[in-house]
Amino acid sequence: MNNFISIPVKEVGPIKIIGDLFNEEVIVPLATYEKPLWPSVNRGAKISFKTQGIRVSLIDDKMTRSVILQSEDAGYLSKTKNELLNRKNELKAIVKSTSNYARFIDLHFQIIGNLFYIRFEFQTGDASGHNMTTKASDQLIKWIIKEYPQLDYVSISGNICTDKKVSAINGILGRGKNIIAEITIPEEICIKFLKTTPKKITELNIKKNLIGSILAGSIRSANAHYANILLAMYLALGQDAANIVEGSQGITYASVNEDKSLYFSVTCPNIIVGTIGNGKDYDFVESYLKKMDCLDDSEYGFNSRKLAGIIAATILCSELSLLASQTNQGELMRAHQLLERN
Amino acid sequence: MNNFISIPVKEVGPIKIIGDLFNEEVIVPLATYEKPLWPSVNRGAKISFKTQGIRVSLIDDKMTRSVILQSEDAGYLSKTKNELLNRKNELKAIVKSTSNYARFIDLHFQIIGNLFYIRFEFQTGDASGHNMTTKASDQLIKWIIKEYPQLDYVSISGNICTDKKVSAINGILGRGKNIIAEITIPEEICIKFLKTTPKKITELNIKKNLIGSILAGSIRSANAHYANILLAMYLALGQDAANIVEGSQGITYASVNEDKSLYFSVTCPNIIVGTIGNGKDYDFVESYLKKMDCLDDSEYGFNSRKLAGIIAATILCSELSLLASQTNQGELMRAHQLLERN
Amino acid sequence: MNNFISIPVKEVGPIKIIGDLFNEEVIVPLATYEKPLWPSVNRGAKISFKTQGIRVSLIDDKMTRSVILQSEDAGYLSKTKNELLNRKNELKAIVKSTSNYARFIDLHFQIIGNLFYIRFEFQTGDASGHNMTTKASDQLIKWIIKEYPQLDYVSISGNICTDKKVSAINGILGRGKNIIAEITIPEEICIKFLKTTPKKITELNIKKNLIGSILAGSIRSANAHYANILLAMYLALGQDAANIVEGSQGITYASVNEDKSLYFSVTCPNIIVGTIGNGKDYDFVESYLKKMDCLDDSEYGFNSRKLAGIIAATILCSELSLLASQTNQGELMRAHQLLERN
Amino acid sequence: MNNFISIPVKEVGPIKIIGDLFNEEVIVPLATYEKPLWPSVNRGAKISFKTQGIRVSLIDDKMTRSVILQSEDAGYLSKTKNELLNRKNELKAIVKSTSNYARFIDLHFQIIGNLFYIRFEFQTGDASGHNMTTKASDQLIKWIIKEYPQLDYVSISGNICTDKKVSAINGILGRGKNIIAEITIPEEICIKFLKTTPKKITELNIKKNLIGSILAGSIRSANAHYANILLAMYLALGQDAANIVEGSQGITYASVNEDKSLYFSVTCPNIIVGTIGNGKDYDFVESYLKKMDCLDDSEYGFNSRKLAGIIAATILCSELSLLASQTNQGELMRAHQLLERN
Repeated sequence: MNNFISIPVKEVGPIKIIGDLFNEEVIVPLATYEKPLWPSVNRGAKISFKTQGIRVSLIDDKMTRSVILQSEDAGYLSKTKNELLNRKNELKAIVKSTSNYARFIDLHFQIIGNLFYIRFEFQTGDASGHNMTTKASDQLIKWIIKEYPQLDYVSISGNICTDKKVSAINGILGRGKNIIAEITIPEEICIKFLKTTPKKITELNIKKNLIGSILAGSIRSANAHYANILLAMYLALGQDAANIVEGSQGITYASVNEDKSLYFSVTCPNIIVGTIGNGKDYDFVESYLKKMDCLDDSEYGFNSRKLAGIIAATILCSELSLLASQTNQGELMRAHQLLERN
Repeated sequence: MNNFISIPVKEVGPIKIIGDLFNEEVIVPLATYEKPLWPSVNRGAKISFKTQGIRVSLIDDKMTRSVILQSEDAGYLSKTKNELLNRKNELKAIVKSTSNYARFIDLHFQIIGNLFYIRFEFQTGDASGHNMTTKASDQLIKWIIKEYPQLDYVSISGNICTDKKVSAINGILGRGKNIIAEITIPEEICIKFLKTTPKKITELNIKKNLIGSILAGSIRSANAHYANILLAMYLALGQDAANIVEGSQGITYASVNEDKSLYFSVTCPNIIVGTIGNGKDYDFVESYLKKMDCLDDSEYGFNSRKLAGIIAATILCSELSLLASQTNQGELMRAHQLLERN
Repeated sequence: MNNFISIPVKEVGPIKIIGDLFNEEVIVPLATYEKPLWPSVNRGAKISFKTQGIRVSLIDDKMTRSVILQSEDAGYLSKTKNELLNRKNELKAIVKSTSNYARFIDLHFQIIGNLFYIRFEFQTGDASGHNMTTKASDQLIKWIIKEYPQLDYVSISGNICTDKKVSAINGILGRGKNIIAEITIPEEICIKFLKTTPKKITELNIKKNLIGSILAGSIRSANAHYANILLAMYLALGQDAANIVEGSQGITYASVNEDKSLYFSVTCPNIIVGTIGNGKDYDFVESYLKKMDCLDDSEYGFNSRKLAGIIAATILCSELSLLASQTNQGELMRAHQLLERN
Repeated sequence: MNNFISIPVKEVGPIKIIGDLFNEEVIVPLATYEKPLWPSVNRGAKISFKTQGIRVSLIDDKMTRSVILQSEDAGYLSKTKNELLNRKNELKAIVKSTSNYARFIDLHFQIIGNLFYIRFEFQTGDASGHNMTTKASDQLIKWIIKEYPQLDYVSISGNICTDKKVSAINGILGRGKNIIAEITIPEEICIKFLKTTPKKITELNIKKNLIGSILAGSIRSANAHYANILLAMYLALGQDAANIVEGSQGITYASVNEDKSLYFSVTCPNIIVGTIGNGKDYDFVESYLKKMDCLDDSEYGFNSRKLAGIIAATILCSELSLLASQTNQGELMRAHQLLERN
């Protein structure tokens, strides 16, 4: 019947973003059925203008794909691993031949009995790189099996990639853009606009995000709701939104500075986005990306890194606002009821 | 500017579903930018008609919310915990007074030093229950603090709920609908329509989904891509799609039967859906829900349980199809390239 | 050749312990090759006398064993689960018939496809209960298979017990004694005897034990070195010391009080000890247990609970001392070098 | 009072070990209060002689220590990280100056907000390397802080080492010796001496060790009881036995070969042992190490690698025997009762 469904979207901001990557005031689109998200992000966005801004830093950028091979015994795999580590230039050349965009970076091994798990790392420029890395990996294992005929094919995906699934490996070895967004908020701004104190937010972060997540049996994750923002922005921007699963595994860290101001940060190790490729040719996607200056004629990968930076800054706005409201008993409930009435 | 974004949607199926909950042939809507998902689910759906069907079983159904309180020392919390466990009827009455739908089931405690984490469990009928449980919890902690004045409020959400975040607690204690979908596929059907064998699928599941996920440092999760289907159906059906994070933590289990047929199952412990409430009043949502007979005048909670069952069956179709294709070297790449050309 | 190996042991303390369980000054034996552990615990023990003492609270006490059964499909398992939940009295009677000590408490289920995992919970009095619960479980599954003939035996141990292995389930559902030890240390005592401040210890705990453990991909664990103390005491006291694996999964929580004193706590959810049973009939074990008044003619289970309380208090001493030393650059290295020279 | 406690010890074996590292028949000492361990290992040891032997392979060997530093913002840390990655030769030289044994291999970073976690990797020859790496790290951070004065000291141990605690990082990045032990057992040998079949063991491993551990919320761990063997051997051999915590996180993998024989393997990524250093100068330790030819005048690190290989082979014996017994209902209970009567 339908060819499309419609999801409510709203542009929110601007958000004041600073840092080594770029300095801009950005308006961001959030597509979601959960409309209270909009005013929540907006509250954080307004705070960004009462401070020096939200500092965004890029820590890492790569895309990964893992495969499984198998042999007779672990001894052969151990030798093969060591040889492959010395043949990276050949692997690099193979990848280059499969794509104009994908670049081989490195590889990582896990050996379990006679099973051989290889995790390839690539740069994929402005594309998120899902297909590009599958294609490259397909060629890489063809070549490896040819060079090491005692190896047998098991799978083109070995679950240590790890795509759209919970893992510790993505945070430890990297997958997608690893971005940190930080803000320093004077105490009086905190009190006036967030109705709370730096100390209260810091304490709540310890008890809820850090200890609460540990108690929940979470893994490498300590935040209130990164997934909400990731979903809303991934949808509005033509991204593969199932990647919010790994994206949800980030860490919020807050502390009170000597001058009583609040240091507040969100660390997002696995933001997976592109500004080209599948999903980017819808008019609304193009128009949003253009408006955020993420379709410029920039150096390899810059547009998608910038986009990831904007997303991390938006996550900060939303995380800050939610935590602030939860420090006050009853506030969250009142806010939701108020929004529902409107 | 825009008020809505548009996401491609397609109805796929029918899928033949059997079991104690309901027996029907169902067509399902999948909204996604990743169009290869559609033929993949369709392949699984076709298989369901070559067998007795996909058996769907409901294991559990509840919604949760956790809060944090604090006291002077752990001794007081230990006593309070034991008292509250004996006052469940009072808690039940409070919840009843906050909502016509929410019903208190039980509560679970975690004590860390002088911090008091309480996880409330509710039935929420046909609503997913996010807001209903927040409202109920808001009243519950008001009452608890009144009864135990040595307790102080810390947070209305303690991260052991766990909402939209990775956890082990959701799988262990339950959150949302816990559904298992199973199918038995004769060997010749497997060979003819999936181009693989029961043994190959079983072996791949062990090496990729079980061991691969363990190696990835995953937590209570062993599957190929439940998140893809959850996202596509949650979006088409007006659900809060950020709940794919916990939904992604499910387990695929396959084995070869004595008669060489394939036993294949997906266990989805945390499907969080409703057929009423926020997001359900869009025309397309209503029309999809109606078509799947999920808006009937049924007993408390049946519609949403049925919906969860349909989603689990769809996950099975998609998981089966992807695993089958990954057993053959190069097939996944060829399939993607073929679809891209069209 | 040898019939015994010798491990260095030293009695350390006394430690001043208070709380609802017991109030005593206790000397504890630590058997270890790592002798710097002795002065480290002693420093903490001395601090306990500069304060009101270390408050010990018991949160929970149980022993568990899990089994695996299997059926044709999940639907049968779901029904069987619900029936068994209504037949707890029969299960209780079976357990009673297998042992004078073991008492059935409850059971927990996990269903994956057609696999049926049951986790039984028992009280085991003053015994740690490893064998007692295996024996009881052996009888329980015999009876269950007789009552539900469609169930087949898979394993007497299903790894969700979880014995001597890492898990989230032990912390969430309980295994062994769950004990919290807490202390409040005036700022000046902290500065004088620990050469650090409440703020520094609190900050270190956040950055090292909470965030560091999250980054490590740990699961339900946030401490510096509980395993060291558990090992040393389990060995000296005839316990099954491989249980330090689950014991190591505890959480240290510290904060600065309004009066600038330090609140410091260790939460040890899985201390597995007995005062009777295997390993307790060695002369040195008996003599240590006697000296700690853990062989008294007390009520069912009191002696082993007290023992667990003493262990938690000792863990606190050692954790506090190590964290204090790590707040100062170079101190740990100097301390080790000093001890090595002596 | 006492200066030593006594733990029962027995030499078990011989075990037939083959592979690239060494080929020998080895007798191993097991110190434990749990005496059923001895016949269990012996059963596996006997099997090793009915086959080609237990193949042992070394996958990796390193020791680690992590530290925490801090700065004003993440941007500075990102730059510093990139600079340090280009100054590895300077770091190497510093480590060389602190020790005759320790060699710097590499370093790994985690940045969370303005917190800077560095994990150093070292070779430590025949020592387990706990102290050596602390000493080296102490010098490394002194130098780093001098070179980058905007960095402040937080902790000499950052919990991502990870020492004596559960983690995913140790398995992913490596800590200690990563050893795989494998055996191929003809079907008739399996039936005759283990009273079970290759298929039964393979199935049990899937349901108990793989799926059971996933359900338990374990992390990078899937085995029955590696911790028991690690403890017994670490104690008998003067090792720091609290390292069984990370050692317990290994993976058992079994499958049925085309010729119906059993492929059985144990992968032990984190065996932490030395043949020199603290705990090695007790007479019994020296005599055991000598008997296993682990005190020879070999190349740097060979003795300790060999020792780790012997331990992994012993783990295989014990894991195989336990799993075999659990495939038969009632066998484990009968075996324990029989042993208790003797």
